[in-house]
Amino acid sequence: MIERLLQGDRRALARMVTLIENEIPQARHYLAELHQHTGNAHILGVTGAPGAGKSTLVTRLVRELRKRERKVGVVAVDPSSPFTGGAILGDRIRMMELAGDPNIFIRSMASRGSLGGLAASTRDVVRAMDAAGYDPVIIETVGTGQAEVEVMRTAQTVLVVLAPGMGDDIQAIKAGILEIADLFVVSKMDKPGAEQTVAELAMLLSLDSKRKQAGWRVPILKTAALKDQGIVEVVDAIQEHRTYLEESGVWLQRAQRQVRSELQVLVIQAVMKSLAANVTAEEWESFTDDITRRERDPYTIAQELEQRIGLKRK
Amino acid sequence: MIERLLQGDRRALARMVTLIENEIPQARHYLAELHQHTGNAHILGVTGAPGAGKSTLVTRLVRELRKRERKVGVVAVDPSSPFTGGAILGDRIRMMELAGDPNIFIRSMASRGSLGGLAASTRDVVRAMDAAGYDPVIIETVGTGQAEVEVMRTAQTVLVVLAPGMGDDIQAIKAGILEIADLFVVSKMDKPGAEQTVAELAMLLSLDSKRKQAGWRVPILKTAALKDQGIVEVVDAIQEHRTYLEESGVWLQRAQRQVRSELQVLVIQAVMKSLAANVTAEEWESFTDDITRRERDPYTIAQELEQRIGLKRK
Repeated sequence: MIERLLQGDRRALARMVTLIENEIPQARHYLAELHQHTGNAHILGVTGAPGAGKSTLVTRLVRELRKRERKVGVVAVDPSSPFTGGAILGDRIRMMELAGDPNIFIRSMASRGSLGGLAASTRDVVRAMDAAGYDPVIIETVGTGQAEVEVMRTAQTVLVVLAPGMGDDIQAIKAGILEIADLFVVSKMDKPGAEQTVAELAMLLSLDSKRKQAGWRVPILKTAALKDQGIVEVVDAIQEHRTYLEESGVWLQRAQRQVRSELQVLVIQAVMKSLAANVTAEEWESFTDDITRRERDPYTIAQELEQRIGLKRK
Repeated sequence: MIERLLQGDRRALARMVTLIENEIPQARHYLAELHQHTGNAHILGVTGAPGAGKSTLVTRLVRELRKRERKVGVVAVDPSSPFTGGAILGDRIRMMELAGDPNIFIRSMASRGSLGGLAASTRDVVRAMDAAGYDPVIIETVGTGQAEVEVMRTAQTVLVVLAPGMGDDIQAIKAGILEIADLFVVSKMDKPGAEQTVAELAMLLSLDSKRKQAGWRVPILKTAALKDQGIVEVVDAIQEHRTYLEESGVWLQRAQRQVRSELQVLVIQAVMKSLAANVTAEEWESFTDDITRRERDPYTIAQELEQRIGLKRK
């Protein structure tokens, strides 16, 4: 299967993604083998509030990238995306268009609750697509929750999409998305209020002094995706950002930070599994009862749990 | 020190809080002893956007609670709060007023970056105040980031404060605060637009069907704190919520959920410490380098890290 996946076989890739999503232990084994064949794909994150125009933008970006003869992967973790199934008919039709192309691989991910689980499985799916020769791989999320921000950290280039006149979007930006945005796209430039949104955003960016020092001026791109306006410029800006990342050394820095965070998440997942394997449900219940009744204290019980999983202190 | 703290000695409590904040290992030992003397305090969370009027509300609530002869603890983790030092002169003067009363204990917490660190140390400080006889203990945070939402989970009763005409607040609510709110307070009812904010909020709540099943109708309380209007009603509603929690069994359910989450956080903190103790900075660097160079894969390295800390698989 690994051999076929590396040759770009779509069925092998689809099977691999299913193994990852279902958390089949064998997936880790395969992913470990695939790792050496990864690192070629430019990983793009596209985020923004529902209704901002993300899905339309992604569809048009994919089409433009195909014109440039790129093999494109899409991972949709956005419940309002046509790729995950939450969107209106027009969006679905556009998506169907793409799905017929053998050089486009689209996969949607369910939003799961576990600690870092969604970010981890998204990263693994991206890794599989990367190994299968897809470049770029686009991750689409809704930019609100902590889980989605975590997912965006997997990306090397993050696009934040805003629609004119949506107070929501500017709010979302304040709430933590601003720091992770590498490019802004104001969609629906044919709608009223579009220039005002651009102006507000430019002001917000001018206040962000940390950015200026980093050597990359976050551009504000304007699109009217349904009219296919501005799409070429967005794809060009994405390419410029990749060049910037590589030349400045930021690409490597980000990769190293991501690796470190991935290692922590993998260890924490292993700890959670070990706790589940070494502590029964009845024991959990009696531990929590003892603590709520004030018969025992949480620090002592935590130490007992640490012993159960074998944790070394020093 | 423990003896004196349990007798309500303020200096012993202040020293204990300092030990917690500085993460002195001895603090855990003391907290383990204190645990059996806790569980009496009603833990209130007060959150809302900066400028919503949280600090003024908290000041007035404390004053009303003092009239009812309660010993009140305040933990401020809000950078815009007068308790932590970020507010305007008028707020500071009101806070100074409170600080002179021996039955009020106020402590501010620095916002730290570590995983669950702020929530954990806030919980420990609340525990110390609880053991020292403070009831209620009020935790004040700004309701935006994930860290603050975590902190709010420590509270048994969560008040979300909104000011009229601040689109910000309704946004903050959508972004995850709605689920954790037990009471809403619309402040500054003497300002224009106040009734509209109340109406918007009522509508938002009426759409939240999960709430209706839970047996507690989230009230929307109206205050004009500077004129001391509505404060008595807020304190009464807080008391009603406590009665509801106890009679419905939700008090116990929440306590058990919190205990479980605290145990997980304590174990994860121990894992992070064990990683720091058993893996040198040079080793971390060589691990991340090997992975980014594709010489080794993260899954294998994570297993090596698990072995280093002694983690049992089964």
